[in-house]
Amino acid sequence: MLGTRAERLASNAEGMDAIVVINDGDPFLDSTFWYLTEQSSGSFEGSMAIVRSDGSMDVIVSVLEEETANSGLGDVHVYHTREDREGFLKDALRGCNKVGFNMHSATYGAVQYIMRTVDGIEPVDAGAAIAKTVSVKDAKEIEATRNACRISSQVAGEIPDMLSEGVSEKEVAARMDNRMRELGGTGNAFDTIAAFGAYSSQPHHMPCDYRLKKGDTALFDFGTKYDRYCSDMTRTVFLGKPPEVLERAYEVVREAQLAGIAEYHDGAPANAADLAAREVIDKTEFKGRFIHSFGHGIGMEVHQDISVSPKSTQTLHTGNVVSAEPGIYIPGVGGIRIEDTCLITDDGCEILTSFDHSFTVI
Amino acid sequence: MLGTRAERLASNAEGMDAIVVINDGDPFLDSTFWYLTEQSSGSFEGSMAIVRSDGSMDVIVSVLEEETANSGLGDVHVYHTREDREGFLKDALRGCNKVGFNMHSATYGAVQYIMRTVDGIEPVDAGAAIAKTVSVKDAKEIEATRNACRISSQVAGEIPDMLSEGVSEKEVAARMDNRMRELGGTGNAFDTIAAFGAYSSQPHHMPCDYRLKKGDTALFDFGTKYDRYCSDMTRTVFLGKPPEVLERAYEVVREAQLAGIAEYHDGAPANAADLAAREVIDKTEFKGRFIHSFGHGIGMEVHQDISVSPKSTQTLHTGNVVSAEPGIYIPGVGGIRIEDTCLITDDGCEILTSFDHSFTVI
Repeated sequence: MLGTRAERLASNAEGMDAIVVINDGDPFLDSTFWYLTEQSSGSFEGSMAIVRSDGSMDVIVSVLEEETANSGLGDVHVYHTREDREGFLKDALRGCNKVGFNMHSATYGAVQYIMRTVDGIEPVDAGAAIAKTVSVKDAKEIEATRNACRISSQVAGEIPDMLSEGVSEKEVAARMDNRMRELGGTGNAFDTIAAFGAYSSQPHHMPCDYRLKKGDTALFDFGTKYDRYCSDMTRTVFLGKPPEVLERAYEVVREAQLAGIAEYHDGAPANAADLAAREVIDKTEFKGRFIHSFGHGIGMEVHQDISVSPKSTQTLHTGNVVSAEPGIYIPGVGGIRIEDTCLITDDGCEILTSFDHSFTVI
Repeated sequence: MLGTRAERLASNAEGMDAIVVINDGDPFLDSTFWYLTEQSSGSFEGSMAIVRSDGSMDVIVSVLEEETANSGLGDVHVYHTREDREGFLKDALRGCNKVGFNMHSATYGAVQYIMRTVDGIEPVDAGAAIAKTVSVKDAKEIEATRNACRISSQVAGEIPDMLSEGVSEKEVAARMDNRMRELGGTGNAFDTIAAFGAYSSQPHHMPCDYRLKKGDTALFDFGTKYDRYCSDMTRTVFLGKPPEVLERAYEVVREAQLAGIAEYHDGAPANAADLAAREVIDKTEFKGRFIHSFGHGIGMEVHQDISVSPKSTQTLHTGNVVSAEPGIYIPGVGGIRIEDTCLITDDGCEILTSFDHSFTVI
């Protein structure tokens, strides 16, 4: 992999004179800023990284971030006032016409601010160029992801010991999160989903005070960050024998996951894995109950850059990190989802997460 | 407080035919969506809440959120396809011309999507109308904030027991986060700052592997969420006697905080507290070392709606929740910050957080 990250982005940003990555207030922060600057610290609200077509990069930060910013990459410009900031911005974009923005990360207000401040800018969508760059992980990023996956896999293995009749979703989620931190994770990749019984049929259920009882499904979707990189995995187990329909659904989901993962390799169309998994599910009694995509890219954001969905027109490349997460959801009864984090390789994929995938009754 | 939250927003949104609150992908989610729908669960990526001038509200969500969405407020419309979604959007905005957006929460791409989908829309900035509505907390919101503050205050009291020579910033941050979860918090309000020694002079330092040694400052800025509402507090203590300059700085920060808090009451200009605190600091040897604002609004986001800064032109109102957090930062030596979460009342403020504010050497 040649050049700096900024240079790789510039080479992917055809027709753009510059790319502006801009943070608004927390939580409207663009992880691309940390990707480019390789900052390990700081909140960088209102900061910008500006990459020009020659791969050079200016980083404009508030005085609040001065000490931190100097430990990162790029030419750092520290502003004390709004006027300073606007001066640096005009200098960085001098002579630029077509300027790329990360349209689904930059706020409307932030893009408008730049267009008001610098004359003659034509905003263009740099989302695809950024995704193309960021989605191919370098060795440092893969190492961080590997560590995140190792930590969450260990917690996946501990889940059966955390479950007993009467424990609440919130309690188990808190224990899992605590364990990920104890094992060296730097924080959740996303809010842990712990969904028991019928709640497991809601793919995005948030842990509540419901208490586990015999016959319940217990679904956990969780991940940690390590050096800013995310893991993402889902394990579904059962407290006592569940309704038979869920046992059948479990086996179908497992088969669907394997069918999808078999389609993961360099050069594969991103929709192939989804279609393969969906075919497995749709030829059973569970047709139509796989109501989301098979996978998504994973990086500093847990959903990033790549869509592994039926209509995706993207292509997978070596160095991509993607989830593999088929599910079957039966309202009022329960849901099954099994998910791993996978690293695309030249001739297949490496599954970075690991846990016992067999039908598990506790 | 009269009417639903949507009705109060509509009455604050003068001249707008509708307000569109739109989520992009995680983390580009607008907490206003949860405020309006009173949803307790769900991730609601790509969902929208549309409030019209009569206070009626449509909520447009993906089939992934169907079960969850029906437990919230508003007329819920569930889309399966992009075409469904666009149809609901056109219906909800029929006849609307001036449409308000939360310009610093909605992404550029999301606003453009709405303008492309619905003809004849003129986008206007609804940020101030939303801030005016959201910043005045109702009883349910105050109760949640109170719980979040109670939990983090208890952890603040436990900090001295967590500190000993050789413990790392990361280790203490993880213990604090675990304790907040154990006490019933539903997750961090923001990434906990634990900054030892010279690192404490960086206001936004992220916990690293640095280990505490005798004479070090130990600064902790942390908060939890409870029912989605945030607490925010900062406690600074010392392992062994610090340099005398930091002891003096501590007393100045404490005095500055009290001077600022004395300006918190219904009807006060929001900059008064900042100016009062700054005056205390700037008449000492630490002039110019208070490099951020005195406070900010707190709600579902930890930085929200209100700026307590020298140039703020806002007015405080009963029901606002704001931080009070003066600091003094001496590069290479250390930093002091003391912060509480305060509820503005008719004739003053109630400090919702509590801990030992005295100069504490462990």
